[in-house]
Amino acid sequence: MIAVLKSNATKQQIDNLVEWFEKQGLRVNESKGEYCTVLGLIGDTTRIDTDLLQGLDIIESVTRISEPFKKANRKFHPEDTIVDIGGVKIGGGNFAVMAGPCSVENEEQIIETAKAVKAAGATLLRGGAYKPRTSPYDFQGLHEEGIRLLIKAREATGLPIVSEIMSPEQLPVFEEIDCLQVGARNMQNFDLLKALGKTKKPVLLKRGLSATLKELLMSAEYIMSEGNPNVILCERGIRTYETYTRNTFDVSAIAALKELSHLPVVADPSHATGKVSLIKPMSMAAIVSGADALEIEVHNCPKKALSDAAQQLTPDQFVGVMEAIDKARSII
Amino acid sequence: MIAVLKSNATKQQIDNLVEWFEKQGLRVNESKGEYCTVLGLIGDTTRIDTDLLQGLDIIESVTRISEPFKKANRKFHPEDTIVDIGGVKIGGGNFAVMAGPCSVENEEQIIETAKAVKAAGATLLRGGAYKPRTSPYDFQGLHEEGIRLLIKAREATGLPIVSEIMSPEQLPVFEEIDCLQVGARNMQNFDLLKALGKTKKPVLLKRGLSATLKELLMSAEYIMSEGNPNVILCERGIRTYETYTRNTFDVSAIAALKELSHLPVVADPSHATGKVSLIKPMSMAAIVSGADALEIEVHNCPKKALSDAAQQLTPDQFVGVMEAIDKARSII
Amino acid sequence: MIAVLKSNATKQQIDNLVEWFEKQGLRVNESKGEYCTVLGLIGDTTRIDTDLLQGLDIIESVTRISEPFKKANRKFHPEDTIVDIGGVKIGGGNFAVMAGPCSVENEEQIIETAKAVKAAGATLLRGGAYKPRTSPYDFQGLHEEGIRLLIKAREATGLPIVSEIMSPEQLPVFEEIDCLQVGARNMQNFDLLKALGKTKKPVLLKRGLSATLKELLMSAEYIMSEGNPNVILCERGIRTYETYTRNTFDVSAIAALKELSHLPVVADPSHATGKVSLIKPMSMAAIVSGADALEIEVHNCPKKALSDAAQQLTPDQFVGVMEAIDKARSII
Amino acid sequence: MIAVLKSNATKQQIDNLVEWFEKQGLRVNESKGEYCTVLGLIGDTTRIDTDLLQGLDIIESVTRISEPFKKANRKFHPEDTIVDIGGVKIGGGNFAVMAGPCSVENEEQIIETAKAVKAAGATLLRGGAYKPRTSPYDFQGLHEEGIRLLIKAREATGLPIVSEIMSPEQLPVFEEIDCLQVGARNMQNFDLLKALGKTKKPVLLKRGLSATLKELLMSAEYIMSEGNPNVILCERGIRTYETYTRNTFDVSAIAALKELSHLPVVADPSHATGKVSLIKPMSMAAIVSGADALEIEVHNCPKKALSDAAQQLTPDQFVGVMEAIDKARSII
Repeated sequence: MIAVLKSNATKQQIDNLVEWFEKQGLRVNESKGEYCTVLGLIGDTTRIDTDLLQGLDIIESVTRISEPFKKANRKFHPEDTIVDIGGVKIGGGNFAVMAGPCSVENEEQIIETAKAVKAAGATLLRGGAYKPRTSPYDFQGLHEEGIRLLIKAREATGLPIVSEIMSPEQLPVFEEIDCLQVGARNMQNFDLLKALGKTKKPVLLKRGLSATLKELLMSAEYIMSEGNPNVILCERGIRTYETYTRNTFDVSAIAALKELSHLPVVADPSHATGKVSLIKPMSMAAIVSGADALEIEVHNCPKKALSDAAQQLTPDQFVGVMEAIDKARSII
Repeated sequence: MIAVLKSNATKQQIDNLVEWFEKQGLRVNESKGEYCTVLGLIGDTTRIDTDLLQGLDIIESVTRISEPFKKANRKFHPEDTIVDIGGVKIGGGNFAVMAGPCSVENEEQIIETAKAVKAAGATLLRGGAYKPRTSPYDFQGLHEEGIRLLIKAREATGLPIVSEIMSPEQLPVFEEIDCLQVGARNMQNFDLLKALGKTKKPVLLKRGLSATLKELLMSAEYIMSEGNPNVILCERGIRTYETYTRNTFDVSAIAALKELSHLPVVADPSHATGKVSLIKPMSMAAIVSGADALEIEVHNCPKKALSDAAQQLTPDQFVGVMEAIDKARSII
Repeated sequence: MIAVLKSNATKQQIDNLVEWFEKQGLRVNESKGEYCTVLGLIGDTTRIDTDLLQGLDIIESVTRISEPFKKANRKFHPEDTIVDIGGVKIGGGNFAVMAGPCSVENEEQIIETAKAVKAAGATLLRGGAYKPRTSPYDFQGLHEEGIRLLIKAREATGLPIVSEIMSPEQLPVFEEIDCLQVGARNMQNFDLLKALGKTKKPVLLKRGLSATLKELLMSAEYIMSEGNPNVILCERGIRTYETYTRNTFDVSAIAALKELSHLPVVADPSHATGKVSLIKPMSMAAIVSGADALEIEVHNCPKKALSDAAQQLTPDQFVGVMEAIDKARSII
Repeated sequence: MIAVLKSNATKQQIDNLVEWFEKQGLRVNESKGEYCTVLGLIGDTTRIDTDLLQGLDIIESVTRISEPFKKANRKFHPEDTIVDIGGVKIGGGNFAVMAGPCSVENEEQIIETAKAVKAAGATLLRGGAYKPRTSPYDFQGLHEEGIRLLIKAREATGLPIVSEIMSPEQLPVFEEIDCLQVGARNMQNFDLLKALGKTKKPVLLKRGLSATLKELLMSAEYIMSEGNPNVILCERGIRTYETYTRNTFDVSAIAALKELSHLPVVADPSHATGKVSLIKPMSMAAIVSGADALEIEVHNCPKKALSDAAQQLTPDQFVGVMEAIDKARSII
């Protein structure tokens, strides 16, 4: 960590600060410049609060050199982590596709969709029972009933289940769910992260809409520091000024996360783009960027005019996407 | 609500869609253009899922005309809402200053600070017992002990208390707290919002780092739709590319929220700027923009070198800010 | 175009407005809702100033339905445009790689690099003679001398040249350059765009750091509306909050631009990521997303310690990237 | 400047780098940490290209400690700069209001508006003759004729003129204009900045839509480094995700720019908000934040229904804003 002091810092102030750092177990290297003095802090600085330092009268700026995430950091854990979701492995060369509807609507829908995605090659079933919605008046999911239907679909197909959890109180309901998803809006719901860290369940952690990669990794660190190493990172699009796509799919984040961390990375082109026409190219782009898994929204052949929402593929479209995925897998 | 159909929509598809809208209780006005057909939907469209519509093959775009928030909307509730926090009124011409430390650290600190801010003119005490931190290794607050010390400070000064709650399970601990604050990272923690909606406690709802005003108002709507009308909106800075300030204080959002909603608006220049030097001008700017209250971080005369973090004022500095606040109040 | 009127608009005001629209040659379809009246405007609305309308007292909002770009719009020109740069075709299935150094530094450097990229398979040479730099104290390029050296490199290799132009006065200097590049900071330098529109030179137009796709296409429209159809669009990364990469490579923009426009799209992974390690995966990602060309920074085997800037590949690294490009090309 | 080296940097590589820095006239202070070595660079680092350093294999990160802007920097020029526009002073306690229409439309409009804003207390006339528009099909201004009419309005009222210049070739046409405005889209049109730097005309430099304060100051530096010290900085709103206002008025940027630089700062609430209702509060907010001037759009009593665009005040509304401005001025 580097602390740059203001030019008007007195010797007494600097000495006090150096003494304080040394009490925290750090070695301090002082370097005087023309306009400022720079302190290099050597040792374990993860517990130093940079906001606090930033606030000191005599400090111009504080820069962290070593990343504050440890357990998620590839530097300290070079080999890929492999996460096992109900027997399906992700990471370390193991690739998986999780597919299914945005929301579980009824038994026929989820079971038909599960069968269709399995037939097309998906190895995990996704489906929402608890839906975070911007408006309290929008459909919020079937809740316990949705979980029950997902389990039925697993029985019918053998596909392990990924579903979103929104609060620690829901943990008992998710007892039988294979992988717990944390949505983008909850990426920094720290109480939820800590509660999930106390389980051993695989956690699929989605990047927040405006979160940096470092913030995503710090949220993974919350889960891991409580004892749960089974974290999968998910790039699902970030908020930008572009309106043609729902979000902007940060494809380079996939490759970057693989450099920074040993955790598996899943890409969600459905939420990232919000457009059926872009799911095939973006699935391929994610794979050539190093994604360990894809999460894709698929809905069984829609009877009602209104069920084929913008980002959900029909089973037929999904077959085409799986072919493209296989092609992209063939060249890496 | 306006739905624009693609030029290749067939008459059959359009008729099906119109019929579906009419089943939702809407009247439909059809208008054919050269490149597209436009449907104007008249009636209560709050429950229509625009994402779902957006996804339909035949739909080019959907635009909501009337805002989807009802209870927070000034159109349907023109007079200002006044929220009462332990006897201190906010809104409808009632102005308040909530001041205190970022975190409760110990009894001496919180009581001394409470006395100092009261002496300077603050009417509410703020202080964090549960602290959301990006890193699991950072100080997370004193928890129950912090709440106990806040109550002691209230006993010593009579100032009602504002403190941040992070999860529904903490509600029993906050039983005696006068106003529950929801942090920016939890603005869309819908389970927390619903739980707070079931109490009658005043809720201070902070805008998310990249949230739009509409999203903030929809989160207020979550609380209000559960039966709790006592919501205070808070502008606390948004994320932009600027690095000189910690966040960018969206001063015009204060005036805009007063136009859009009848709820009181509080401004937090401490978090918005992260810089002691900017708190005085930004407090004045907030007031001339219509803020009903200010939330300002103040820390008692720091003994230890490290306690005067960047955005916390000393009691002396706070006295100067209160004078500026009085001046700004005098001209509106 | 849809204009939504405020609920308090009087009949007289509405009639005046309708009359005005009709004078502009538009047909007007009026639809009364519960809270507002909606006017559907049918006809050529490209010349209507939405900002002006937005400002009218009685108008709540204005939404454009048909895109305001015409000449760049795939709707009105479904077949792919093919741009010819000194005999090298781009678009309509023709793929090209433009490679070379960020800046032309001296004769040896540019000629060696040109030979190296040609040997590896590049078909166009890129190199900067005029460099837009944030600081006036940074190196600004060799100017006329740089152009002269680029032409020497073309003589030595036969590779046509792409180089950035910063102002209309430079046009005579660029007389012999095969393709004129407009940098991201100049995307809305309208006087430059118009001047380029009056030539017949191929123009490589880079997307601005925070520009939407629509704004990029409107800038293309500036060039095309002056009579020059030879425009190539370039995705080169947008500004986001992420700091690990220099910019965020908007890979889905490539696929989106191919949907919206018939113009060829080139991707620049070097500027988009600023990291050598990401150029191979992002080149592949761009290709599977439909890019018609790639622009990649390559520098000849660096003698001096300081010349291998973060985003420039060595010729050896470039050979590896070209192999990856060929693999990606093989599956589309 | 601080350069952090990667942990795998060899002694030979470090020695080479240190030697190179010393050749640039810098002193180097080396500090070895557990995971990395840190070099503190002391001396004039403004000409060091951080991008280039960033690219070196052995470098982890580079941080500039002293700001790269010199002539605009308050550290090296503590007293306020005062810019004189045709006899009207701005800065150093001198306050001015520049008002007038977005575009010059005809003689009656500009002269009537000029008289009205003068009567209300404005001391400078603003008006656009060259208009940068996103679309080539939108009205682009009256050009030379607009300049001629502005000069007529100056003759009629004595108000000096501020008008936007878009390219160096227009300089002869602007010969008699008192202050040349550079629009947000041209903030990094470096050829234009350099051309303006060679004149002695006051330049009003607008912040780009997504520009940081440092980038704005570096653009000011372009003008100043060519010999023209008469630069006025302008905050006119930045692009964010909010849609209620056209842009987001970064009020704290005004106070921040006054801390960072000695140059006068003008605020443009008309473009920043795009809403008549917000101009009064935002004008007051700008003043309490330290603005040296305001630029406000006013249009003479509109005869035609369509001329009162969203952000332009009527002369009557402007009188009200001027009263609010006076009140805000009275308390600072």
